[in-house]
Amino acid sequence: MSKLLPLFSVNGVIGARLSPLDRGFAYGDGLFETCRVTAGAIPLWKWHFERLQLGCERLIIPLDHDQLDQYLAHLLATAEIVDGILKIIISRGEGTRGYRPAEKISPTYCLIFSPSPIDSGNEKGVAVRVCQQRLGANLVLAGIKHLNRLENVLARAEWCDEGFAEGLLLDEKGNLIEATASNVFIFRSGELFTPDLSRSGVAGVMRRIIIEQLAPTLRIPVRIEKITLADLYAAEEIFLCNSVFGIWPVLQVVNAGTAEYPHGLFTQQLQQALKIFLLSGHQHHEVAQ
Amino acid sequence: MSKLLPLFSVNGVIGARLSPLDRGFAYGDGLFETCRVTAGAIPLWKWHFERLQLGCERLIIPLDHDQLDQYLAHLLATAEIVDGILKIIISRGEGTRGYRPAEKISPTYCLIFSPSPIDSGNEKGVAVRVCQQRLGANLVLAGIKHLNRLENVLARAEWCDEGFAEGLLLDEKGNLIEATASNVFIFRSGELFTPDLSRSGVAGVMRRIIIEQLAPTLRIPVRIEKITLADLYAAEEIFLCNSVFGIWPVLQVVNAGTAEYPHGLFTQQLQQALKIFLLSGHQHHEVAQ
Repeated sequence: MSKLLPLFSVNGVIGARLSPLDRGFAYGDGLFETCRVTAGAIPLWKWHFERLQLGCERLIIPLDHDQLDQYLAHLLATAEIVDGILKIIISRGEGTRGYRPAEKISPTYCLIFSPSPIDSGNEKGVAVRVCQQRLGANLVLAGIKHLNRLENVLARAEWCDEGFAEGLLLDEKGNLIEATASNVFIFRSGELFTPDLSRSGVAGVMRRIIIEQLAPTLRIPVRIEKITLADLYAAEEIFLCNSVFGIWPVLQVVNAGTAEYPHGLFTQQLQQALKIFLLSGHQHHEVAQ
Repeated sequence: MSKLLPLFSVNGVIGARLSPLDRGFAYGDGLFETCRVTAGAIPLWKWHFERLQLGCERLIIPLDHDQLDQYLAHLLATAEIVDGILKIIISRGEGTRGYRPAEKISPTYCLIFSPSPIDSGNEKGVAVRVCQQRLGANLVLAGIKHLNRLENVLARAEWCDEGFAEGLLLDEKGNLIEATASNVFIFRSGELFTPDLSRSGVAGVMRRIIIEQLAPTLRIPVRIEKITLADLYAAEEIFLCNSVFGIWPVLQVVNAGTAEYPHGLFTQQLQQALKIFLLSGHQHHEVAQ
């Protein structure tokens, strides 16, 4: 029988709760991944796991691959629902007082399985706004999906209008970095551009797949560099991406004024290439049962 | 009978645990205070509460003063120990998927009461090092004591040598901001200087008491401004402060080389003024029982 969603486990125990002494709660001292589950497997697991590994290295949190696999398999088997969104949170575990990490770290593995969101953005495109909230810079934290997400929370709290699917985030210098929960790409003169994330932002799994897999397949050159608001306005096509919704064409950017963009050919080609990539099955990783 | 420490409560329930869906755990979406408890009361409660209130305003988290007072009184009565360290964590509470805060927020009030740390830094002074980890800038988050503390964790993870009591943190531009868990002041030419925290750092309760209460009593002018490493090295006296340990004279700053400082007269005067201030009782706030 299917269990009520969201279904969660803490260190492999279904329905368990967290210690108030967990450093994830105290300091946001940990990492997370949000993965689409399709037919009981995580299609992009290899990429999610690699980013998780990188994050654990940066934060010096030991990651036990086998243990995580076991907890994942147990949760997905218990859910008995084969499609949904799996969130993995790995924190540094319980701590005593103070910022100093313990010498021996026992991470907390928290898994949350939720129903799939309804998404129509793929077909019809979305409108986005430019957020007031800016992203700070940190060379160690840039790129990884750590738990210090107040900037994203404050940015997402800026609007209630359901007409905006996302908000674009700039850094302190006014350069475009990402959207609150997705990455951004722009097309111009036959080239694809996406912001350099070496100082701010999350380097998304879908962003990486577009850069390393889809764009090369379509022979579209990709440039990772500084992108200004002027570059954004001069774009011929814009899209957002993440591993939950895939690719969303951006049709409107609202800031002081409103700029409009088509659901153009390059974006359509990438959406098509993503469909084929996800159906190809080569990238599937079945979580060990 | 006294209960084992640390003793904690979640929303008033002693020993309760947290939901894995808590946004404090998911995003560090909340605030905290670390208060010294003396003779069953929190001497600096007024200041802690004011900062908590400011933080809740910035993060748009509704704060119920009466409820917090009730939970505090219950925890302290249960502990039956009259001296220790109380940590208050207030998060935005449970959430569904995504960064967007719920329209109706039910915050989580988590209280943790721990034994007092042993501290000899007040008398003999401390050695500190300059951390590699830099602090990012964010105008909304600067000053408040929010739960996004990875920079502090990474900075504190830089050293294990017990000879260093603290580490100094610089911003991206190399200006001095604070120490990992305390604020910093320097004396030069009869004036007291402390870094401007409008872009980074936590504006500590003890820092505020020194600026607003102790320095004026002693007629020492205080300047809140940009402080460079060169200013630090040119200082005649340096001290750190927080509401747990009070004032620590800094005798050594280790970076590329080692700079030495005396436990000077100004610092001694401030330490004495703090003792009198804490004994005066005017500032005491008895938590309602």
